[in-house]
Amino acid sequence: MRGIALSDKIRFLDTTLRDGEQTPGVSLDVEEKLAIARGLDSLGVQVIEAGSAMTSEGERQSIKAIAASGLDAEICSYARALTSDVDAALDCDVDSIHLVVPASDLHIECKLRSDRKSVIRKAVEVTEFAKDHGLIVELSGEDASRADMDYLTSLYMAGIDAGADRLAFCDTVGVLVPETTAEIFERLSHLGKPISVHCHNDFGMATANTVAALRAGAAQAHVTVNGIGERAGNASLEEVVMTLESLYKINTGIRCQDIYQLSRLVSRMTGLPLSPNKAIVGENAFTHEAGIHVHGLLANTKTYEPIQPEAVGRKRRIVLGKHAGRASVELALHEFGIGVSEDQLAQIVSRVKELGDKGKRVSDADLQTIADTVLSIQKEPKVKLHELTVVAGNTVTPTASVKIQLNGSEKLEAGIGVGPVDAAINAIRRAISGVADVRLEEYHVDAITGGTNALVEVWVTMAMADRKITARGADADIIMASVEAVLEGINRLMRLEEEERIKCQIR
Amino acid sequence: MRGIALSDKIRFLDTTLRDGEQTPGVSLDVEEKLAIARGLDSLGVQVIEAGSAMTSEGERQSIKAIAASGLDAEICSYARALTSDVDAALDCDVDSIHLVVPASDLHIECKLRSDRKSVIRKAVEVTEFAKDHGLIVELSGEDASRADMDYLTSLYMAGIDAGADRLAFCDTVGVLVPETTAEIFERLSHLGKPISVHCHNDFGMATANTVAALRAGAAQAHVTVNGIGERAGNASLEEVVMTLESLYKINTGIRCQDIYQLSRLVSRMTGLPLSPNKAIVGENAFTHEAGIHVHGLLANTKTYEPIQPEAVGRKRRIVLGKHAGRASVELALHEFGIGVSEDQLAQIVSRVKELGDKGKRVSDADLQTIADTVLSIQKEPKVKLHELTVVAGNTVTPTASVKIQLNGSEKLEAGIGVGPVDAAINAIRRAISGVADVRLEEYHVDAITGGTNALVEVWVTMAMADRKITARGADADIIMASVEAVLEGINRLMRLEEEERIKCQIR
Repeated sequence: MRGIALSDKIRFLDTTLRDGEQTPGVSLDVEEKLAIARGLDSLGVQVIEAGSAMTSEGERQSIKAIAASGLDAEICSYARALTSDVDAALDCDVDSIHLVVPASDLHIECKLRSDRKSVIRKAVEVTEFAKDHGLIVELSGEDASRADMDYLTSLYMAGIDAGADRLAFCDTVGVLVPETTAEIFERLSHLGKPISVHCHNDFGMATANTVAALRAGAAQAHVTVNGIGERAGNASLEEVVMTLESLYKINTGIRCQDIYQLSRLVSRMTGLPLSPNKAIVGENAFTHEAGIHVHGLLANTKTYEPIQPEAVGRKRRIVLGKHAGRASVELALHEFGIGVSEDQLAQIVSRVKELGDKGKRVSDADLQTIADTVLSIQKEPKVKLHELTVVAGNTVTPTASVKIQLNGSEKLEAGIGVGPVDAAINAIRRAISGVADVRLEEYHVDAITGGTNALVEVWVTMAMADRKITARGADADIIMASVEAVLEGINRLMRLEEEERIKCQIR
Repeated sequence: MRGIALSDKIRFLDTTLRDGEQTPGVSLDVEEKLAIARGLDSLGVQVIEAGSAMTSEGERQSIKAIAASGLDAEICSYARALTSDVDAALDCDVDSIHLVVPASDLHIECKLRSDRKSVIRKAVEVTEFAKDHGLIVELSGEDASRADMDYLTSLYMAGIDAGADRLAFCDTVGVLVPETTAEIFERLSHLGKPISVHCHNDFGMATANTVAALRAGAAQAHVTVNGIGERAGNASLEEVVMTLESLYKINTGIRCQDIYQLSRLVSRMTGLPLSPNKAIVGENAFTHEAGIHVHGLLANTKTYEPIQPEAVGRKRRIVLGKHAGRASVELALHEFGIGVSEDQLAQIVSRVKELGDKGKRVSDADLQTIADTVLSIQKEPKVKLHELTVVAGNTVTPTASVKIQLNGSEKLEAGIGVGPVDAAINAIRRAISGVADVRLEEYHVDAITGGTNALVEVWVTMAMADRKITARGADADIIMASVEAVLEGINRLMRLEEEERIKCQIR
């Protein structure tokens, strides 16, 4: 430990709506930006960089709406050292500007085609202009990590003299390492103004660098939800906050239990998926498969979890696959009320592993099918598909007819939908309605890449009363994969319901 | 800088096939494991942890196949402190075992229900057994970062006495921070045996911690491709290697230019998608949209890129959207041979931003449509869809009929396929064959989440001779979204071809 105290209170400037939204292919409309801003505000960040007012008319509308929405956070717009950029920000009625000025010779000369002196002159001029118009100014050195430190210091000092309220140091292309970051911020913290750290993740070091800066005297961290942003993105809010909270035992003032919900909102609205193994917020961050891990978790969750999932608003999930062990299979069987002997359990574990060995994820329905086989339960499926025909096209309403066998008798139904899959599922739902009140809670298709003949895997979560199960289907035909998953789910739910009814009668 | 020298040569133990494969839902078969092992070997890693021999029969077949495939790398199996685990490893004919022994009291007591002394006794016994059978032994302390350091040291020393060749320190739940890591490895590097660092990424610190350990004396880093692994995954090979190479100027001996290809292979075979902003290997790591960035890049790519994309086997990509500027739009128009005046360019930029403001990604075909409007080019589309009818189901072969207008005359065709989308696209390809030799190079559907009525976005890359363009379609009906994207691509390619032909005739 370097023994350097953190600032009294760490502040967060969240730039999900500015640097995050600059992610190629991402564009948020007014309503989406507002929803995310509200989430950030209730999470407790001090500053929301809502966008770049000079970008477009749509952008200005969004920033205005956020500035007018009565949030606690300071609302900020990005601006270059141009008075027209400040005018655009003023037009949106923001509290502050993040005034970004190139600091490295590379940026000054190659991009701006300017020189060091002129950059300082412009920075001073625009800072004074913004201060005259009542804005809080955070003066930011772009590409500061590749700048001459003496020049950077004189840029900051000129800005402070001109009235800048805060400074920011941008590692624009993510080339910092923690020990260098610490040295830099120790030096800059003597300038007498709060300074922000702004890190990019090109080498996967953004979180470590941000934390190193905060420990060396930085007052504020620039972050984005899910770490989204240009190229490899920015320092991620959830990683920086949870590192400070859990590893350094610092109370950040952030409502951590709301992190996951906001992460989902941002992912949905930006359309940016997360790697399953994204720290804190990835699908698998609190998911366990390996038998050895589940065995440990059942004894004490701390064995394989650094924090409780509930701390960030999540739940633990145990899944089955080739690495499953007795503990996890027994747990899953227990949840479905299936009792087995030691010997039967061993057989089921071995079959689960076999299915896993084939590269398959094992769904709830798969486990039940395996259990049936091992327990020699031979039951006809409740619902059996005899015929399915779907017609679709540009001049017809997608229409499906189904002939199914339901509890022994045949039923014929038709359904329409917005597309062929929707029509087919609607026809099936109609055919079973009245007999089984099954809901399709979630329908998910993995991204399809390759050709139009690629295998499509469909996962569904089906529910009946308060019981939920997952089922899957796979086929080169997306309609058939969807129908397979849904029918599997319906069959399993109907069976579970029947078994429960019988149990109640026996009691 | 702490002034501590790195080991003469940093070694890598890649555990993509063991810890990486333990990612919930992942299971690789023999051929897949072999392909990844070959990739790792040619990349230059020293040790390949090929799996856990005791897991299953399928796993043993894979490990055997890798051990028998004549690779340069040392082939290693994971083993617990059980002679039966070593027997399983021997059965696979590996060179070494990664012998993992719980080191923290939490793991010793809660998971193993054992005590410190017994753990050391078992570790010594199994190390001796493995050495007697000719294996290289890397003795690993599981959950070492939460272990008592004195106990851990005595465990390591007992192992060294029993013949262990290397040691490993596992940060099993990812709770290390760089400065603590450095202290630990400075201390452990005095034990006289090479020691590995094994980091998990629960707080996003795995890369920083791994690098800190290597700088403090660790001889070997455990990594996985794309950072896959349980929960938030392991330290990622590409981040650790490129941090050492680019930020610390250390020659790792890894063939960096092959990193991207291997990353794609692992992502495809594990089925684990990457966040677009994953460092080094994510889709967006070298993609640029913001006008200000593209403007800088055109002057000097270093302005917004820390390394050349070619260094890791990639290419730079410029995309258009709401943050596009004149520079990027002009570049894209130039690529399609579209010349515009300054004023027209400004109009096109503004319309590209407008489309971006609506939350749309702008495809090549979109840009051309915009340019047509601004340049007042009114041309009938070459191909126009009049009628499309698709029939699919469980008892019929997916069949489509199309009526299209092609260069003014009507054409009727039918096609079959593995599913309704495939049938529709095949029918269209047939209808235009002979007139336009268009290939569908890539077909991509974003993951669909929500209900069966969710909007589906289809992106295609279409090619004609050596020209390629991207086009998109969006509809709640996956067939119509696919057809829209494909027809848009065909139209644009046919037009470009015609314009080129006319230019040649004029010359």
